Formats: sequence, C-alpha cells, structure tokens
Amino acid sequence: MDKSESILNIAMKRGFFFPTAEIYNAKAGFWTYGHLGTLMKRKFEDLWREYFLGLDTNYFEIEGNNILPRDVFIGSGHLKNFNDPMTECKKCHFRFKADQLIEDDLNLSTSVLDEKQLDELIRENKLKCPRCKGELNEVKKFNMMFDVKIGAVSNEDIAYLSPETAQNAFLSFKREYFALREKLPMGLAVIGKAFRNEISPRQGFFRLREFTQAELQIFFDPDRIDECDDWNEVKTYKLRLFLAKSQKIDEIRCDDATKKLNIPKFYAYHLAKIQQFYLDNLEIPKEKFRFRELDENERAFYNKIHFDIEIYIESLGGFKEVAGCHYRANHDLEGHAKLSGEKMEIINNNKKLVPHVLELSFGVDRNIWMLLDVFFVQDKERTYFRFNNKIAPIEVSVFPLLNKDGLPEKANEIYESIKKNFVVSSDYSGSIGRMYRRVDEIGVPAMITVDHTTLEDNTVTLRNRDDMKQIRVKVKDLNSVLAKFFKGQTLDKLGKVIN
Amino acid sequence: MDKSESILNIAMKRGFFFPTAEIYNAKAGFWTYGHLGTLMKRKFEDLWREYFLGLDTNYFEIEGNNILPRDVFIGSGHLKNFNDPMTECKKCHFRFKADQLIEDDLNLSTSVLDEKQLDELIRENKLKCPRCKGELNEVKKFNMMFDVKIGAVSNEDIAYLSPETAQNAFLSFKREYFALREKLPMGLAVIGKAFRNEISPRQGFFRLREFTQAELQIFFDPDRIDECDDWNEVKTYKLRLFLAKSQKIDEIRCDDATKKLNIPKFYAYHLAKIQQFYLDNLEIPKEKFRFRELDENERAFYNKIHFDIEIYIESLGGFKEVAGCHYRANHDLEGHAKLSGEKMEIINNNKKLVPHVLELSFGVDRNIWMLLDVFFVQDKERTYFRFNNKIAPIEVSVFPLLNKDGLPEKANEIYESIKKNFVVSSDYSGSIGRMYRRVDEIGVPAMITVDHTTLEDNTVTLRNRDDMKQIRVKVKDLNSVLAKFFKGQTLDKLGKVIN
Repeated sequence: MDKSESILNIAMKRGFFFPTAEIYNAKAGFWTYGHLGTLMKRKFEDLWREYFLGLDTNYFEIEGNNILPRDVFIGSGHLKNFNDPMTECKKCHFRFKADQLIEDDLNLSTSVLDEKQLDELIRENKLKCPRCKGELNEVKKFNMMFDVKIGAVSNEDIAYLSPETAQNAFLSFKREYFALREKLPMGLAVIGKAFRNEISPRQGFFRLREFTQAELQIFFDPDRIDECDDWNEVKTYKLRLFLAKSQKIDEIRCDDATKKLNIPKFYAYHLAKIQQFYLDNLEIPKEKFRFRELDENERAFYNKIHFDIEIYIESLGGFKEVAGCHYRANHDLEGHAKLSGEKMEIINNNKKLVPHVLELSFGVDRNIWMLLDVFFVQDKERTYFRFNNKIAPIEVSVFPLLNKDGLPEKANEIYESIKKNFVVSSDYSGSIGRMYRRVDEIGVPAMITVDHTTLEDNTVTLRNRDDMKQIRVKVKDLNSVLAKFFKGQTLDKLGKVIN
Repeated sequence: MDKSESILNIAMKRGFFFPTAEIYNAKAGFWTYGHLGTLMKRKFEDLWREYFLGLDTNYFEIEGNNILPRDVFIGSGHLKNFNDPMTECKKCHFRFKADQLIEDDLNLSTSVLDEKQLDELIRENKLKCPRCKGELNEVKKFNMMFDVKIGAVSNEDIAYLSPETAQNAFLSFKREYFALREKLPMGLAVIGKAFRNEISPRQGFFRLREFTQAELQIFFDPDRIDECDDWNEVKTYKLRLFLAKSQKIDEIRCDDATKKLNIPKFYAYHLAKIQQFYLDNLEIPKEKFRFRELDENERAFYNKIHFDIEIYIESLGGFKEVAGCHYRANHDLEGHAKLSGEKMEIINNNKKLVPHVLELSFGVDRNIWMLLDVFFVQDKERTYFRFNNKIAPIEVSVFPLLNKDGLPEKANEIYESIKKNFVVSSDYSGSIGRMYRRVDEIGVPAMITVDHTTLEDNTVTLRNRDDMKQIRVKVKDLNSVLAKFFKGQTLDKLGKVIN
C-alpha cells in the first residue's frame, strides 16, 4: 500500500475525512470532515487566526458571503479570466481539462501555455480521448465559477459562488476602513468556503470543488511598500527561495532579498512570517519548505509578485502548493471602483490614495493533507502520526486497564478533571494493546492508563506516543505534568521512566 | 429613531455588520459581518460548541459540504416539500410570497394554510399586486433551494446548496458511528452555512438567503427515548413552555412535563439544557424566554415533536424564533436508506435498529441580532450594549489620556501585557469623553485609562461600563483584577472607587 492510500485508509476509517454523500453517487471533489478531521481543522484555523491576526493590531477577521452578485466578478475580472482550458470528446462528449490531459499523455509542463498552444499540442501529437479514443474538439475556455439564480423574479438575477474569499474583503474595504478609524496598513481576513467548478478533479484534497480558504488581505499605502515597522524582527532571517531563474532553493536573508531581488520590505516581512508559521508553529522540517517564485506567465491574472508556499508532500510525489503570497496591487479595488462608480480613494495621513493589497492565501484542506503526510510514520511496529499537540485532534487519551473493578469509573473521573485544559478522549473497551494502537493511529501524543495501582495510591501511567516510554504521575499533578509535557519536557524530567 | 434603526446604525458604522456588496446593487438577504460582528459570532459559536458538545462525551462536530447532490434532497424530502407559496403579478411579473402578502394586507396568521386556501383568500378579498395593482396569478409552490450545476460534462449534474446543515450529519452517520465505536446516543454537530432562496426577504437577520446554522443531530435508540442518564440534573428544573393549547407561558418542571404532557425524558432533558444555555450562559432575562410548541399543521414536514425557542425581541415587535428542538424520528435515515439502497440499520447493544434523531437547531445570525436587541440600552446620557464578557466582541479597551508625553507607548505596553488573556483593543486619538462613548457604543465591559499618574506609580484607572465607576489598579495586578471583574466581582471589592 502506498503512503497516500495508507493515510486515506486511516482517515476514512477513523473519522478524519471521507467522500461526501458516499451512499449516493459521490461526486469527485467533495469531502466531509469527520469528528477528528474537524477537531484538527479547527486547530489549524485557530492557530492561523491567532498568528496572522497577531502580526498587527489593525489586522481583523470579517465574514462575508459565498454567494456574490455577478457584478463583483465582472469588477474583479473573474468572469473574463478565471478559466480552465477544456476539450471535449467528439464521440463520447466527455470533457477534459486540456492541460492535464496533455501533461498525462506527454509528460511535460503546460503551466505557461494558452488555449491555442494547448490545442496545437493535441493536434501535433494526435492525442485522443482517454476514455473512448474519440477525436478531441478544439480547446476552449471554461469558466470555473458555479452560477446561482437569486430570487423568484421572472428575470432572474445571476450570482456566483465565490472562487476565493478575497472579494468579501475588497467589498468591505471602505466600511471597515472607517469603522477601524482610517488606519493603514489594515488587514481583513476571511476564513471560509470557496467554490471552483473543476472540470475533472482528481488530486484528492488538492483539487476540490468546495474547499476552505484562510485569506488575509492587507491594504497599505503603495508609497510605503519599502517600509516595515517590525523590519528588525526579520531582516537577518533567511528565506528559503526557489527562484524562477535559478530553479533551486537558496537561503537568502530578508535584507539581501530586498537589495538583490528587489522584493519590497513589506512583502519580505510577510514571507518571513509565513515561513516562521510553518517551521516554528507547525514544526514542518525546514528542508520540506520553500517559496516558489511564479514568473509572469504562471501567476494569476491579478498578481504583480507571486510566491507559492510549497511543502514537500511525499504522498503526492513532490513539492506542492499549500499557500500563496500575492501582491495584488490595486487590481481589485480599481476594478470595483470603475464598474460600480464608487470611489475607492481614501485620505490617509493627509494623502489621497487607493491602497494596494498584499494577499496571504492558504488552502486549509491542502494544509490538513500536508500535515497528515509530513507527520505520518510507519515503522516495523506501528503506524502513527507524529503530531505536536498544537495540531493533534486529540491531545490526551484516558483508558482503564480493565473494563471492571471500578477502573472505568476512575478513568471517567480523571477524564473530567483534565478536559477543561486539554482535548481528551476516553475509551473503555478492548485490550490495552489495541487501545494503544488505536490512539497511535490518530496521533494522540499522551496516553493515560488507569490500573489497580491507581485505586491504591492515586497515580496513573503517562505514556509518550513517540518513544512509548512511561512514567507514573499523581492524579492531582496530572494537569501540570501534561502542561509541561506539551511544552516539550521529556518524560525523564517529569518522573521515573518505567520501561 | 426606533430601536431597530438605532441598532442597525451602530452595527453598520462600527463594524458589526452591513449589507454585502453595497457598492453594487446589494441583494436583499445577504449580510457581511465586520470585524466586531465576526468577533462576536465566533464567541457565540465557541460558547455553543463548548456547551452543547459538552453535554455528552459522544457528541462531536463534523464539517460537510454546502453543495450536495440532488439525490440527497430527494431522500430527505426537501425537493418535494421545501416550498414557499408564491404568486406572480400578471402585469409586472413580480413574484410574492403569498402568505406574507396576505398577512400584510389582511393582518391575519396564515401559518396553517396551504396553497389552495391562500389562493382562496386572495380571490375572496380581491387582493392585488402591492407594486402595480395588477391581478395576481394562482398561488403555486416555489422550491426554496438554490440549484447548482456540477462539472463540465454535457449532461450536467444538478446539485443544491443545502438549506440546513443537518443532511451532512445524516450522510455521515454510518462512517461516524463506526469511527466512534458504535455507541448511542451519538451527536453530530455542524456549524456552517445554509442557503434558502427566499422569494422576497425583508426581515433583516430573520430571513436571510445565506446564513449560519449551528445544528446538533443526536442519534439514539427510540426504545430508550424515555431514558436519560443525567435526568437528576434537570428533573425539577422548570421549563418555560408556551403550549399550543393554552397559548400562554407556563413554568412546568421537567418531571411534570414528562408525565402530564407526554414529553419524552430524552427530549425534556435537552429542552432544559437549551433553556439553561440561554438563561445562564447568555444571561437572557427569564421573562424574555419561552419554548413555543408547534402543532401538527405548523411544524416542518420532518418533525414529530417541535418546540421553537423564542426570545422577546423588542426591535421586531415580539417573541421570535431563534432556535428549535425537533424530534425528526427516523425520517431522514429511512428516506436515504430507501433511495440509496444503503441500509441504515445498525446493531447496538445486540439489537438491530435504525436510530431516531433529535435535532437542536440554532440560527446563529438570528441569535446575534437577538443579543444586540436584548442588551441594547439607551438612556439620557448614552447608548450602549450591556454585553457580558462571554459575548462582548471586545472585552477590554486601553487608552492613553493624551496622545503625548509617552502615554501612548505606556498604553501599548499595557495592551501587550493583557492581550494573551483578553480580547483587547486600543485607541490613541480623540478626547477621553469621545473614547468612552465609542467603547460604550460597542459594549466593551472594561476600560483602562493610562494617565500621567501611571508614569509615576504604575497604576491605571479601570472603568466599569455599566455604572461608569472607576478604581485605580496596579499594572502588575491588571490580569488578575480583570479576571475577577469578569467573574462578577464589583469594583468596590477590587479597589477604592474614585467617583
């Protein structure tokens, strides 16, 4: 079984996630988070929120709508530009994502090619329908937004499910600018659903039709793009940059990046903070992290500078995009101003300006799969996720050694005494060996066993998932010992190791 | 200005919420939460999650999809039954919700009438189009779900935006039942968006086209509906019931409700817990709370017993529904089993059964408006929200008395020292009087002022929003004093009251 399958098996069996509406004909690109996946996703979102909104006292979260009127996507350019190249089989009428079909058949990268070039490749190489070998139609643009009709008026209003959460921030810009008392930079974050009508989604969590984005739009004065209040925090910090020109990872200090690569200070600061989020908070091994620079042909239509955040994901065969840092400039605000007639100009520090926007954009589902991949361990003895407690869906599990003699009641008492401080589960059936296997499999870092000694001296065993070592801990000290354990104390510092 | 307008003015100006896409032709029924509204909504959702998932160790949250395949809504009955009565003007072709039109024109309740009866009322009373006085067409059913086409295959797949989050729990039932090791009762909660294509939404937050639901589906053995492990916790607790027969509020003990009203124990327990959530957690005054029993004609097509949770909302002119407690029985699981061919029967405690479902369903947006209404205070001196710190979007505000002499820097230092424990804002401009007015207006319970004395003796003033009294507090004690203040300690117990 390959890694991807192993992870998926555990995920589906144990309640991380599974295809939506399996009992019917489940549609590709739709997944449901079970109870463990939801606990983990909430943790990721809470970490993200605390970290990125904590970067500035003027960064806040808002919550808008998934359904937005047509005009919004005319203004933003999505109606015109948010397309995938599509080709249809003349015989079976199945439709394909043309670039994907070519990449599969010819094994070459198509990211910089337009519809015409893709079409030429199909003709030159005489590519056929992968399903029925029929001939393929001319490659055309297919808009990836889902449309929705609002209301019951005869002449119905067309709206779209938003393919990113960002537009909610742009639409709210002026209201929030005044509510937040006219300060720049101002950050508006949205954690919410986005929707893309993928032609033929295949890559699990990396091509979803409905997915969660965590996005932060930072509005700032473009004249001050080379200024940064907290520059000293990052100026010697080394960014891991995979530049379009060099096509390899270079570690480059922030101050060198501003001088040698013309990356503006305000942008470089946020790159550094993103890297620190992954390396320090999520504890991703450094060598698995890189920023990939996208050149002009590759980046989205609204971006001036664009680095993807890529993590090495073994189950997907290489570095994959989990987030992006985009300099959207005034693309969206100007687009909306032009179409709506509502001026987006503000007065800040006695100067008239339309702010520019730096976007930090994270695919939450992709990050969840990435975490499962990076922390998956399979050795001779067992299979487990080496999650730290910041992302582990369950932090502590409590078991009675036997399901009798008052041990379950004692276990329940202990469960109740620690559940205020930790995410705890308890389980009262099966052998201790099987219980350990189960909690290992879902990555619980700390396991507590209640045995007959517990009834005598009010101590329990605490087991560390990673090395399977154990110590005995007094029940009354459990909350403080666990707190220290999660801060990184090793068991031998916290008690006498038993085995 | 009436209360509704006053609240809306503050909400829109200060960043609680505002119509989505105002710069275009904003569509009715779509609202965006600004930074304060989002802070408050998160608090409500977190409170809800902690409280209701805390009722049983086997209640968990999951997260599904907004887009669900057509079959789901055939199985659930929504495609057939989730309709509003609609009538169209023959002249201007505008469409109306027929029951609303009749209620407006004739001032009578239509909740138990079907399309034919509504049509008769229109004919008998010769009602006309409210816009152009044209004649009205026959009243027809209008399905309130938004449809969405998935994929780019020629013969496109129809799906729907879910009008409730509940179906995700039913679709996940078997996966989660096994992942959670085959225990009943099992609770699956979803906090997420729901979508209803309202014909002509008007009542602000009470008829949204896109809204947030917090729903808990509890799967249980129907033979044990009269059992409840924690019955002793609630049996003498008095429910405030507005029964269909008596049409007035009676306070009835849970044990009496089971005996005299035939309300099953398992249902009564959850009613009690819902009431406690509102009275104890949200601190809604008792007299503003009631459960309204819906009789057979009024309740949704899938419910066997149905109580609405209603709160007296002055700005909306009376008691309004903010949540519901629904005994959905086996309606959904059986519907899906029949259509999909997937058996929903499980073996629990050596018995074959299809679980029944008790649903607790909360309209998050309605609850937010309700909280703004209930805690709104307007007196001669000022306008403020009397939020407790559990729901206040900002808990503490820090000000420098003057924007000079090092006071802003000191204020910032204090802000940093307490922001780990509380939701804090700081503001460095304007007179102290205007600052107080601003934080009152958004319901900040505790205000801290940094003045010249602070620089001398490291004390600040702490002001209580409700009575405007102040004490001086040592900066180093601030975290603990604030914690006590939020636990209900009055200022005179925490220091010497200055004014």
